[in-house]
Amino acid sequence: MSPPHIAGVGMTKFGKVPERTGRDLFAEAGSTAIEDAGIDRDDIDALYVGNFMGELSENQGHMGPLMAKAIGLDVPATRVESACASGGMAVRQGVRDVRNGEADVVLVSGVERMHNMGTAGATGGLSVAADDLWEIRQGITFPGAYALMAQRYFAVHGGDKEDLAHVAVKNHANAANNPLAQYQSEISVEKVLEAPPVAMPMGLFDSSPITDGAAAALLVSEDYAEEHDLDAPVAITGTGQGTDNLALAERDSLVWTPATRDAGQEAYDDAGISTDDVDFLEVHDCFTIAEVLALEGLGFYEEGEGITAAREGETTADGDLPVNLSGGLKAKGHPVGATGVAQLTEMTKLFRGDHVNSDAVEDASVGLTHNAGGTVASAVVHVLEVAE
Amino acid sequence: MSPPHIAGVGMTKFGKVPERTGRDLFAEAGSTAIEDAGIDRDDIDALYVGNFMGELSENQGHMGPLMAKAIGLDVPATRVESACASGGMAVRQGVRDVRNGEADVVLVSGVERMHNMGTAGATGGLSVAADDLWEIRQGITFPGAYALMAQRYFAVHGGDKEDLAHVAVKNHANAANNPLAQYQSEISVEKVLEAPPVAMPMGLFDSSPITDGAAAALLVSEDYAEEHDLDAPVAITGTGQGTDNLALAERDSLVWTPATRDAGQEAYDDAGISTDDVDFLEVHDCFTIAEVLALEGLGFYEEGEGITAAREGETTADGDLPVNLSGGLKAKGHPVGATGVAQLTEMTKLFRGDHVNSDAVEDASVGLTHNAGGTVASAVVHVLEVAE
Repeated sequence: MSPPHIAGVGMTKFGKVPERTGRDLFAEAGSTAIEDAGIDRDDIDALYVGNFMGELSENQGHMGPLMAKAIGLDVPATRVESACASGGMAVRQGVRDVRNGEADVVLVSGVERMHNMGTAGATGGLSVAADDLWEIRQGITFPGAYALMAQRYFAVHGGDKEDLAHVAVKNHANAANNPLAQYQSEISVEKVLEAPPVAMPMGLFDSSPITDGAAAALLVSEDYAEEHDLDAPVAITGTGQGTDNLALAERDSLVWTPATRDAGQEAYDDAGISTDDVDFLEVHDCFTIAEVLALEGLGFYEEGEGITAAREGETTADGDLPVNLSGGLKAKGHPVGATGVAQLTEMTKLFRGDHVNSDAVEDASVGLTHNAGGTVASAVVHVLEVAE
Repeated sequence: MSPPHIAGVGMTKFGKVPERTGRDLFAEAGSTAIEDAGIDRDDIDALYVGNFMGELSENQGHMGPLMAKAIGLDVPATRVESACASGGMAVRQGVRDVRNGEADVVLVSGVERMHNMGTAGATGGLSVAADDLWEIRQGITFPGAYALMAQRYFAVHGGDKEDLAHVAVKNHANAANNPLAQYQSEISVEKVLEAPPVAMPMGLFDSSPITDGAAAALLVSEDYAEEHDLDAPVAITGTGQGTDNLALAERDSLVWTPATRDAGQEAYDDAGISTDDVDFLEVHDCFTIAEVLALEGLGFYEEGEGITAAREGETTADGDLPVNLSGGLKAKGHPVGATGVAQLTEMTKLFRGDHVNSDAVEDASVGLTHNAGGTVASAVVHVLEVAE
C-alpha cells in the first residue's frame, strides 16, 4: 500500500463571481490540474466532488456525473458532502482508492457557489451544516455558534479579542501576494478590533468571507508516477477523519474539538509521524477562534495555549510553525466545498517551490491539512510529505 | 482482498410518515441492522449515509455525523449523494473500505424524508437530480423525462403502454405480502391503463411513489465474521459504477443507458461472473420504463427486447429471472437516498430465507442490485453471492 502522489493541482481565483456556474468553476480547476500534471485525461479512473450546498445555491445536486461530463470524463464520479469539510472528504475517498489499488489516477475536487445567493441566502444555506432541530430553529447562526465558542474560550482559558485579531492579521499577510486569494491586502490589529461586529467577539475580520471557487488535485499511484516519469514529489501519507455531535449543546465542551483530535490522531498513526515532525499547516480558520481550536485539537498546543500563537509570532510565515501560508479561509477565501481541496493544492505548491510563500518552508518535508465541517462536527486531516 | 459479508440488515416500513425526522428513521434502520447482526456497536469502524435532498426536505445537510451520533456512534461518518443512486454509492464506499482492510465493520445506510415537502415540493426537490440549466429551467420534470424515454422506446423498438403495465402489476404482486412495503395490494393491467396520466405514457401506476424511509446494512470483513462466529452467508463480491450526462439532450440515445452498462460490466468483472450466473435482480424501477431499460443496459435482454419480459412472465416471481421480488421502487416505495440500501437489505433477506418471497429464490446463489440516479446519469451495481 504505497501512498498516492499529487501529480497536478488547479484552483480558480477565489472571489466573487456570481455569474459563473459550479460546472464552469469546476471545469477551470479540473482542467488546470490535468494540465499541471501533464497526463492524458483518459487515464483518469474516478472523480470525487466535494460540494456542500449546490441544491440550495443553484438548484443542483448530482454533481458527480455533472462535473465529470463538464470536462469530458466518463468515469465513476461521486459527490461527498460533510458541510465545510466536504472537500477534505473528497480527498480522503480519492486517497483510499489510489492506495488500495482501486484506481491509478483519481481527480479529487471541490466546488461551491455562494455569491449568487446573496449574503442572507448564503448564511441561510450554511445553516444546513448545523443541527436544524436543536440549533437553527432556535435562531443560532454559524457566526453565532463560533462566537459562543470564543466567549467560552475566553471564560475558561483567558485570552481576548486582540489575541484573535492577530490570527486574522497573520492570514491576511500571508495572502497579500497570493494571486489566487480573495483578499490580497494586509490588515492591522486596530482594523480588526474596530471592524463592525458580526457576533461578538467575532467581528467582520474574524470571519471568513463568502466565496465562489473550485479546486482540484490529481492523485496518482506511485507506480503510475514512475511509469509516466511524472514530477510528483508530494505524497499523501496519512488520512484521518473524526466525528462529533452537530449541536454545540450536546457536547461536553465548547472549547475542545474531539473530531479534530480523532482525525489528527488517525492521520498521524496512518503516516507514522507525530506533531513534532510537522513543519507547517493549513487549518480550518472559518473564524479566528477556529484556528486556535484547531491547533489545540491537533495537539500542537495544550488546551488554552493556542490563543497566543499568532500574537507571539509562532505561527506567522517566519515563525517556527507557519500556519495558513495560503492566507487560510480568512483571506484566501472559503468556497465551502472547495476549501479542503484548496488546502491541498496550496500546500502542494508551497512544497514544490511555486507558491509566493514557498520561501517560508524551503526545507520543509512534512505538512498537514485540517478541514472541519460545521462547528467541527466533522473533521478530516491529511499528512503530506515530500518524497525523498 | 476478500469480499465483505452482510452481517445484519434493517429497514423501516416504507410509507408516509411526515412526522418522523430523518434521524429518527435512520436510527430505527441502523439499530435494527446492528441488532440483526448481533454485534457490539463499539466494533463499528465507519458509517456511510446515502441521502439525496435533506437540505431541501428538512433544512439538514451534514448527515454523516448527525446520523452517527443519533445511534451513539463516534466513528468517521460520511454522506454521499448521487441523486436516486445515493444509497448504492454509500454501499459502494463501505464495500471498498472493508475489502481493502480500511475497516472491519462498516454501517452503510440511506435515508430520505419526502412527504413533509408535499407532492409539489417533492417533485421540485427531485429536480435537483437533473441538469438545472438545460432541463429544469426548460420546464421538464422527472416524470416528463422518463415519459420522453418511454415514447422514444416505443418509436424505436415498439411496445406499448400495456407492456409497461405488466411491470407495475408484477412489482405490486411481489409487494403484496411484504410488510415493509409502502403498497401491499395487487393491481391489474386494467387499473394501470385506466389510471390518471402523470406524463404520458406514464400513468399513476407507472410511477414510483413519494416515500419516507431508511435502510441500513452492516458490512463486515470475512475475518471479523469468522472470529465472531457470525451467521453472515451473503457476501458482496462485485461493485461497479457508471456515469452519463445529466441532460437527456446531451446523450446519444434516449433508450440506452451506458451508465448502467458500465456499472454492470465493472461489477461482473469484479465478481468474476457473467449475466448467466445471476439468479435474480433488484433493479431501479422508478418508472416502469426504467425497469425495462435497466434489464437491457445490464445485458439481460438485447436492446428493444426487455419490454415484454414482465408480460411474458420471465421476470415474475415464478419466472426464470425474478426481478424486484421486494416490490421494487414501484410498490415497496422509493425514499430516494434509502433505495439503494433497501435493495441490499431486501436481497439479503431473500437469500437468507426470511423474506416473504424467499421461496421464489430457494436455490439462488447470485443476485444483483442496480440503483440509478436521475435519468441514469449515474448507476451503481452490486453482485451478491451466498457463501458456499
